[in-house]
Amino acid sequence: MKDEALSSLYTPALVVDLDKVKRNVQNMTERYEKLGVQLRPHMKTHKTLYEHTHGYINTVVILCDGSLFVCFSSECADIMTGGTRRCIVVSTLAEASFYADHGFDDILYAYPLPFDKVEHCAALSERLDLFQVLLDHPDALEELKKRPLKDGRQWHVWLKLDCGNGRAGVLYSDPGTLKLALAIAQADGVELTGVYAHCGNTYKCKGVEQIQAVAQETTNLTLQFMEKLKDAGVTCKSSIGSTPSCSHPVKDMAQLSEVHPGNYVFYDVQQSLIGSCSLEDVAVKVLTRVISHAPHRNQLLVDCGWTGLSLDGAGTLPTGYAVIEGHTDLKLVSMTQEHGRMEPISGPLDYSKYPLGTMLTLIPYHSCATAAMHSVYHVYSEGHLVGKWLPTRGW
Amino acid sequence: MKDEALSSLYTPALVVDLDKVKRNVQNMTERYEKLGVQLRPHMKTHKTLYEHTHGYINTVVILCDGSLFVCFSSECADIMTGGTRRCIVVSTLAEASFYADHGFDDILYAYPLPFDKVEHCAALSERLDLFQVLLDHPDALEELKKRPLKDGRQWHVWLKLDCGNGRAGVLYSDPGTLKLALAIAQADGVELTGVYAHCGNTYKCKGVEQIQAVAQETTNLTLQFMEKLKDAGVTCKSSIGSTPSCSHPVKDMAQLSEVHPGNYVFYDVQQSLIGSCSLEDVAVKVLTRVISHAPHRNQLLVDCGWTGLSLDGAGTLPTGYAVIEGHTDLKLVSMTQEHGRMEPISGPLDYSKYPLGTMLTLIPYHSCATAAMHSVYHVYSEGHLVGKWLPTRGW
Repeated sequence: MKDEALSSLYTPALVVDLDKVKRNVQNMTERYEKLGVQLRPHMKTHKTLYEHTHGYINTVVILCDGSLFVCFSSECADIMTGGTRRCIVVSTLAEASFYADHGFDDILYAYPLPFDKVEHCAALSERLDLFQVLLDHPDALEELKKRPLKDGRQWHVWLKLDCGNGRAGVLYSDPGTLKLALAIAQADGVELTGVYAHCGNTYKCKGVEQIQAVAQETTNLTLQFMEKLKDAGVTCKSSIGSTPSCSHPVKDMAQLSEVHPGNYVFYDVQQSLIGSCSLEDVAVKVLTRVISHAPHRNQLLVDCGWTGLSLDGAGTLPTGYAVIEGHTDLKLVSMTQEHGRMEPISGPLDYSKYPLGTMLTLIPYHSCATAAMHSVYHVYSEGHLVGKWLPTRGW
Repeated sequence: MKDEALSSLYTPALVVDLDKVKRNVQNMTERYEKLGVQLRPHMKTHKTLYEHTHGYINTVVILCDGSLFVCFSSECADIMTGGTRRCIVVSTLAEASFYADHGFDDILYAYPLPFDKVEHCAALSERLDLFQVLLDHPDALEELKKRPLKDGRQWHVWLKLDCGNGRAGVLYSDPGTLKLALAIAQADGVELTGVYAHCGNTYKCKGVEQIQAVAQETTNLTLQFMEKLKDAGVTCKSSIGSTPSCSHPVKDMAQLSEVHPGNYVFYDVQQSLIGSCSLEDVAVKVLTRVISHAPHRNQLLVDCGWTGLSLDGAGTLPTGYAVIEGHTDLKLVSMTQEHGRMEPISGPLDYSKYPLGTMLTLIPYHSCATAAMHSVYHVYSEGHLVGKWLPTRGW
């Protein structure tokens, strides 16, 4: 990371290693091709498409007839979908609209149907070949039924199942859950497209064995629910996901229709501690510079506060809020809006090693949270800056 | 907050009460007019100007001659400067450039001189009537001297003093501190404009007495340093700041040249707990909606995760990550990227009170952190939406 191109960036700067992104994506893609399960990548971590949106264009080629041909060398959503622009998951309607506006289709808005956005969801359902929503409450089904789609179209609905994750979803074991699934399947103008379980409880795991225990449990509970549905005469898709479980699938996951991980495109320190990846797989970093010395506190000040890194992880790492690449003896002990305080894990700080202006590289605890703080991601490959990715924001 | 206009917003939504903003600003302005001290408001909390930047215009009046007159009803930086567009503090160079590009001047970039941005600072210094930088290390002075300004202009430099805050700044008691101040004052092409102390240690206070003890201590130490400078034949401005201390000034602050609070424009729950304001003064809220029920966990799910609120405060309030307006029995216990989990502080949840789609209002723990998560602030006055403010981001 001592490349001249990177050192030209204003800090703090979010930088993305394009080669690692491609490798992470390739590994995940091949894993599910082998397993025969459809990979439906989640866009929530990066929320980017390419660098065109705000006027950054990588290469413009002027053709013989004088027309312009615009080359986008680095398209994250394209990388994740292998260029098909089909079969993605999003967490906000802003993402759904952003991708729909850029030629993506077969989009699953995997979020408990928000009542303020039903009309917007209807518009996307009427416009795209396949826009899919999710719900986990009978009242949400009633809300959809109040807004029948035009031209005989159906609402494509996934039922969210809570298999022990403890966030959204109806509980797998609740008798009302099967009843809700059947109500969706039988409702006019509505189709039960699938059953969706997020196994975010893998985030409490350490190591492959624990991850796979959660993956197995979630798979079992989901497949058992699919059996119940089948017994009631209903068939539909099934999908489970989370980056840890999808990085280390169990064999039975081959019986699912789909998986939907997202964070794997970047990974992060948290994922490396869970056991999803190695620290070397992390594709996103934050560059920061030393801006001051505080010898009266044995500390360095750097130009990355929580606006550049986020507060996720709450400083629980031995090295504080991040891993400082190549400086295992340093700890990012605290941050305010635009300042970070670093100190040695032990002993006095050798200030001669860190003159003002020194660039340091932070490996983030949680890449989704860190990426959310940046309006521009600087993309590099083999030490050269090759483009900018500009995320969509909001809801 | 049950107004029809607000209920039309997609959630999560950051809403700003324009009347409270104006009242908070008026109180602070009058306080320092009475004390005879220049108020230099900090822009870091809101970072907005008006709604024009991205194409949102409040009112367009077509004049008789056919020309257009554009009305910006709600200009936060204009409110804070009383329309003068002079005498502000910023925390990033992006803010400095944003305000400079919109006709602001007398801008203090109160951040330890970042070596990557010296050329950009020089350009602003050569372009504006008064662009001021800050430093706290002899090497930063050397860096400035390497880039003399054109046309005989001087670098306007504030020395950052650490009077016990423990972030940036040279320690007030260090013999090297006076030496650095004199070196700035004596350097060719450089002027010692002032001495600047941020008393962020007021954030550890509870109540006016403790706040004023820190304000008194910071004032004393700053004024003592000014005396030392005077004894050495150097005079310059002095400034201290933080919203708690500036909300409850001590008499001796009248001897300072300036103060530089920022958060007071919005205030927040943290400030109300410190004693800077009452909860009723908080001018910024986040609207959220109930998206799901989780009776198996006695919880509600709302559509505000950390992308809508930030993780600041780490859930330390009795009500978790925020105060839920009008629902003192509810606690926002945890958040992930787009989901918030709420539960009663005690007892079983009465779900009939919170049907799906119910709007709830979160009063944020730290408004700077919450505002940083939003690309649009929805501004309302007396229950009507009156405009949008669009913040600048980045560095």
